[in-house]
Amino acid sequence: MKRVVVTGASGFIGSRTLAGLVSAGFEVHAVHASAAPARAADDVVTWHQCDLLAQDPAPLFGRIKPTHLLHLAWYAEPGRFWTSAENFRWVAASLALVRAFLDSGGIRVVGAGTCAEYDWSSGIDRLSEDAPRIPATVYGVAKKATAELLAAQARGAGATFAWGRVFHLYGPAEDPRRLIAGTIRSLIRGETARCSSGDQLRDFLHVDDVAGAFVRLVDSAIAGAVNVASGDAVAVRDVVQLIARRLDAESQLALGVIPKQPGEPQSLVADVTRLATELQWHPSRSLEQGLSDTIGWWLDFERARGHATGALGREGASPA
Amino acid sequence: MKRVVVTGASGFIGSRTLAGLVSAGFEVHAVHASAAPARAADDVVTWHQCDLLAQDPAPLFGRIKPTHLLHLAWYAEPGRFWTSAENFRWVAASLALVRAFLDSGGIRVVGAGTCAEYDWSSGIDRLSEDAPRIPATVYGVAKKATAELLAAQARGAGATFAWGRVFHLYGPAEDPRRLIAGTIRSLIRGETARCSSGDQLRDFLHVDDVAGAFVRLVDSAIAGAVNVASGDAVAVRDVVQLIARRLDAESQLALGVIPKQPGEPQSLVADVTRLATELQWHPSRSLEQGLSDTIGWWLDFERARGHATGALGREGASPA
Repeated sequence: MKRVVVTGASGFIGSRTLAGLVSAGFEVHAVHASAAPARAADDVVTWHQCDLLAQDPAPLFGRIKPTHLLHLAWYAEPGRFWTSAENFRWVAASLALVRAFLDSGGIRVVGAGTCAEYDWSSGIDRLSEDAPRIPATVYGVAKKATAELLAAQARGAGATFAWGRVFHLYGPAEDPRRLIAGTIRSLIRGETARCSSGDQLRDFLHVDDVAGAFVRLVDSAIAGAVNVASGDAVAVRDVVQLIARRLDAESQLALGVIPKQPGEPQSLVADVTRLATELQWHPSRSLEQGLSDTIGWWLDFERARGHATGALGREGASPA
Repeated sequence: MKRVVVTGASGFIGSRTLAGLVSAGFEVHAVHASAAPARAADDVVTWHQCDLLAQDPAPLFGRIKPTHLLHLAWYAEPGRFWTSAENFRWVAASLALVRAFLDSGGIRVVGAGTCAEYDWSSGIDRLSEDAPRIPATVYGVAKKATAELLAAQARGAGATFAWGRVFHLYGPAEDPRRLIAGTIRSLIRGETARCSSGDQLRDFLHVDDVAGAFVRLVDSAIAGAVNVASGDAVAVRDVVQLIARRLDAESQLALGVIPKQPGEPQSLVADVTRLATELQWHPSRSLEQGLSDTIGWWLDFERARGHATGALGREGASPA
């Protein structure tokens, strides 16, 4: 019997892992922090309320006795998560969580890391998992320390540990304070989308693929860090121009009008050899397909709320 | 006004920092976990009971409003601290502690690290602070992660941070489950002191000197990691033979009768350039002087309890 607890299960990635985990044969226990997420009547997932920052998770794990843990919960408020002291609370909460999991007999821990663990000034074209890790941000420091601590915790209890380092992700229902969602929403609303010069190279992966990679990671025996990314270097400018073209809104794009963030790396692209070779996992869609899917979701969402302008607002809105 | 909180203040190092901190002009607030330590009537230190693993330290810091924090408390049970899961609880407790300190307005954090943070297989003769850090033990992993986290916490609040990496220490009243104290006690009791071959090179510093270095570190503006050590490479065999000669008990020494610990490094010696040059700090006694002091303490202690044998037991015991 494979029984997995997913933390952050109502979040951007977590919510998209649940069906895949069920398909992979897991009994799925989803942990959410506060308000119960909306779900279908035929939902085979068991939901549990536990605020990991405030409640001891040990009683919950003692009842569930999971074999696997997929720990995705973290502080993620756009614009604030890079520097917030909340990151340190999540380090402590993660230690207590994994301790509770191991004490209840768990055998495999998988957590979510980040490309912010790497040294952004290294100048390396494609970051492999053993590239230098000198985080420039509080978020990166906290995630890197958590990875090292959780690995040692798991090892000490004879459990296996893997850590998916997520690069840039996007997809339906993303917070519009983030680049891709914000650009799409602005363009749909007939507003100007203000961007930096956009020559930075990034590695984008659709959230459903990020979730799919985590499902595969949980259901494998692979140990250590694994980049969760596409491996494709794409200029940010090309992504926003792709979006603008798809929405026939290129005139609304204002490239180069805002400065880059200080300390922002020129290139942040993953070497995905481990993901592709050891885990035999590949993205299920191209960036173009992923962006189309995401734009479609936003068109439905904005039309339903009367925010889409001009031709975009008229072409057959379907209620969200 | 310089006002320092010392955690682990009743411990092996902590108890020896207090007088030095007072001399350096600090108002000293000493935190102990449980039973109040014995102290003289003229003690100018203010003692506070707070179990950092169980109690929120925020109210205490809100009352004291210290400018400086010297965080020495940690799990240190000989033989167990290398691998214990208690180390992870101390990571979380340290994060909560430093958060409380910074929230109360503190400006400088100093903590105790360890030579176990370094890569023991590096083969480097003298480990400088930027030597590779790939800890082989849970204790080393936890201390290394704590250093990185506390540095980021302090930086985020505009406070300074330093981290004293302690190598091997010894001195009066050390736990006899540790090498030097155990050897001295066995020889005084007329027992055989069983050792490994003892060709490992170590870096020993008397606990009063370790404490003195931490006082200097707290009272400086130096940032980052600083090795707290002698810089002298000494074979373990030479140390125990020195002890045996001093006690005229060389026949009781059984060298090479127990195997080395698996994974034990051949050499573990500090480069003390930062300590000596930037902090301008030097040990106040040689290894010979430090061992004499320690042996004297144990002779008093064992004689007072009637455990010293033969000539050692007769030569003018002074009650401890």
